[in-house]
Amino acid sequence: MTGFDAEAILRALRSALPADKGRIGLHEPCFAGNEWTYVKDCLDTGWVSSVGSYVDRFERELAEFTGAKRAVAVVNGTAALHVSLLLAGVRPGDEVIIPSLTFVATANAVAYCGAVPHFADSDEATLGLDPDKLAEHLSAIAEIRGGDCVNRRTGRPIRAVVPMHTFGHPVDLDPLVELCNRWNLVLVEDAAESLGSLYKGRHTGTFSRLAALSFNGNKVLTTGGGGAILTNDDGLGKMAKHLTTTAKVPHRWEFFHDATGYNYRLPNINAALGCAQLEQLPRFLKQKRDLAARYREAFREVQGVRFICEPSFAASNYWLNALLLDPPFVSARDDILEMTDKNGIMTRPAWTPMHRLPMYRNCPHMDLSGAEDLGLRLINIPSSAALGGGHD
Amino acid sequence: MTGFDAEAILRALRSALPADKGRIGLHEPCFAGNEWTYVKDCLDTGWVSSVGSYVDRFERELAEFTGAKRAVAVVNGTAALHVSLLLAGVRPGDEVIIPSLTFVATANAVAYCGAVPHFADSDEATLGLDPDKLAEHLSAIAEIRGGDCVNRRTGRPIRAVVPMHTFGHPVDLDPLVELCNRWNLVLVEDAAESLGSLYKGRHTGTFSRLAALSFNGNKVLTTGGGGAILTNDDGLGKMAKHLTTTAKVPHRWEFFHDATGYNYRLPNINAALGCAQLEQLPRFLKQKRDLAARYREAFREVQGVRFICEPSFAASNYWLNALLLDPPFVSARDDILEMTDKNGIMTRPAWTPMHRLPMYRNCPHMDLSGAEDLGLRLINIPSSAALGGGHD
Repeated sequence: MTGFDAEAILRALRSALPADKGRIGLHEPCFAGNEWTYVKDCLDTGWVSSVGSYVDRFERELAEFTGAKRAVAVVNGTAALHVSLLLAGVRPGDEVIIPSLTFVATANAVAYCGAVPHFADSDEATLGLDPDKLAEHLSAIAEIRGGDCVNRRTGRPIRAVVPMHTFGHPVDLDPLVELCNRWNLVLVEDAAESLGSLYKGRHTGTFSRLAALSFNGNKVLTTGGGGAILTNDDGLGKMAKHLTTTAKVPHRWEFFHDATGYNYRLPNINAALGCAQLEQLPRFLKQKRDLAARYREAFREVQGVRFICEPSFAASNYWLNALLLDPPFVSARDDILEMTDKNGIMTRPAWTPMHRLPMYRNCPHMDLSGAEDLGLRLINIPSSAALGGGHD
Repeated sequence: MTGFDAEAILRALRSALPADKGRIGLHEPCFAGNEWTYVKDCLDTGWVSSVGSYVDRFERELAEFTGAKRAVAVVNGTAALHVSLLLAGVRPGDEVIIPSLTFVATANAVAYCGAVPHFADSDEATLGLDPDKLAEHLSAIAEIRGGDCVNRRTGRPIRAVVPMHTFGHPVDLDPLVELCNRWNLVLVEDAAESLGSLYKGRHTGTFSRLAALSFNGNKVLTTGGGGAILTNDDGLGKMAKHLTTTAKVPHRWEFFHDATGYNYRLPNINAALGCAQLEQLPRFLKQKRDLAARYREAFREVQGVRFICEPSFAASNYWLNALLLDPPFVSARDDILEMTDKNGIMTRPAWTPMHRLPMYRNCPHMDLSGAEDLGLRLINIPSSAALGGGHD
């Protein structure tokens, strides 16, 4: 490890992080607003579950914040992605293009539809789907047959492309939109990590037919567990609500369901948390940008490692800050994780790429050297909004 | 409607229900215990989501209360049933025997496994699966081939039997256990409605390999949305936890998943509600028995209708109280629903039987005249614990 000073990483982290914070987690929620008031309102009125006004309000305010026509609150990001794929027309036996470097939910949601993930490579510039490599790959393996994009190697239709905005950094959407148009593929954004992130001034999750958000405990905004489907299509929004609420046909008292639906609705008590969190989201985002700016500064002179900044076309929410080790220093990763952990600063590596997991090992894929490489070089560092200071 | 006095039903309801209650709902939750304290604890500590002590505590206390060896808390009853069926070995192309008279989640959970619901008839004595008719049906259509119970008509293996304890009244489990043994079928109890209900002194949900509970807003105990898997098999309990938490292999920092898992874990904030509710459950159950006793008394002399009492072998939780119209008065049902509603007392009919829903219309089934008949004659009446009095 010549020329690499692991202690310099620890010093840089310490200089960017507030002093006297005790053990610093990777991403902790902040409940400094009306969480208490709104949750108490649910308990006092008895509206904690499937009926109650916070779900409607949370959906309305999410749509306003993102600029999507419709937001449908659901039980988590995985559920949001599952139903988005169903409504995008994904059927058993289809293939769906997703990045191999993603959280396992992206691949699982494809599997829930009875479809097969088709893994694409990731780009160091965005950490997400590499549009150029995908274009090249499709030219090599796909053809249009009767309106469908078909994988010539497997004979299966490729139905959709699901870019994921890794750690909140938007992928380059314009070329992906163009690619989907050319190949008759449906674009579905996995925006689980990118609430508050903009691509060319517009909110991520509004460039595709449907998109999924997540409000898990470690996200920019949390509802305990929760997620949402975004869409600009009123009809799809209505169907998303219907499918996520057991496909019950509205009736004064009859229980009639017209499709195999899902019990995916967000409970009102979790939506109440979401409403309170959404009020603080602009502040969270500002705090997170402040923290990212401090990291950028602190790591400017550190050898062998680069702090990941937002792509030039984007304003990121900086959900999870990340360092990228220079290729010669990959082998130092576990030592760094160990050392920071010992010193009370929580860090973690990226996910194992999906094509390395036993259940997805035999799925179709392109060359994945970018994802393999990034998977070994990335290190996430503490990113809670409260670490950005300026609050309370 | 000769001999039938709809007004007598209204009078009986009024005599059993507390006066001056305003509009009376079908089933409303009661948060009179430590709900507030425990939820505030979650907010104060920041543990609202996937990590936190209330999930462990809720699971431990559920296991203690029910006598099951292991309880695994999940996001709702549908998820509990889905994973119970997967762990019971239900595979795509299998058939699963369920009552046609049930909430749609029972059938949907079978469909999520890629399996086919096979509808069985219900018994007026329990409102649940009729063991005698099922025995006769299996003798007529099934045979054992290579250890599997196979439906000779469809050629598909029949893998499991899922009785549902309707409105909290236990089905007759002993003959079903025997039937499953004889035909090599796995018994999975849909105990979504029967938390607190005993069959021959033992808690429902502990007679089968796996069982599903629900804590939806309208249930005896609520967590906003939630459910649990019960099992007496340690290995299955461990697998249920693994599969419902994205099948992540425990590791200090690596993200490695060894199966297509689910994001079904119950958030800690919802488990906190559950812990507080569980403390009050014995009181809720007592209140509900008191209310049922008052209904029984009030309807003793009403012509054309019968109040549903617990089966002789059971102690029911009386989750949802129900009236059964005598066959000649079936056509009066909608008028009764209308009239009670107009008078501020919420009532509702039973579910449309599953074989009448478009997506399950072509599924295999036996003679379903019992389910059809009950589906038209049942009326649920207000059942909140607080209506039983003696609280606060």
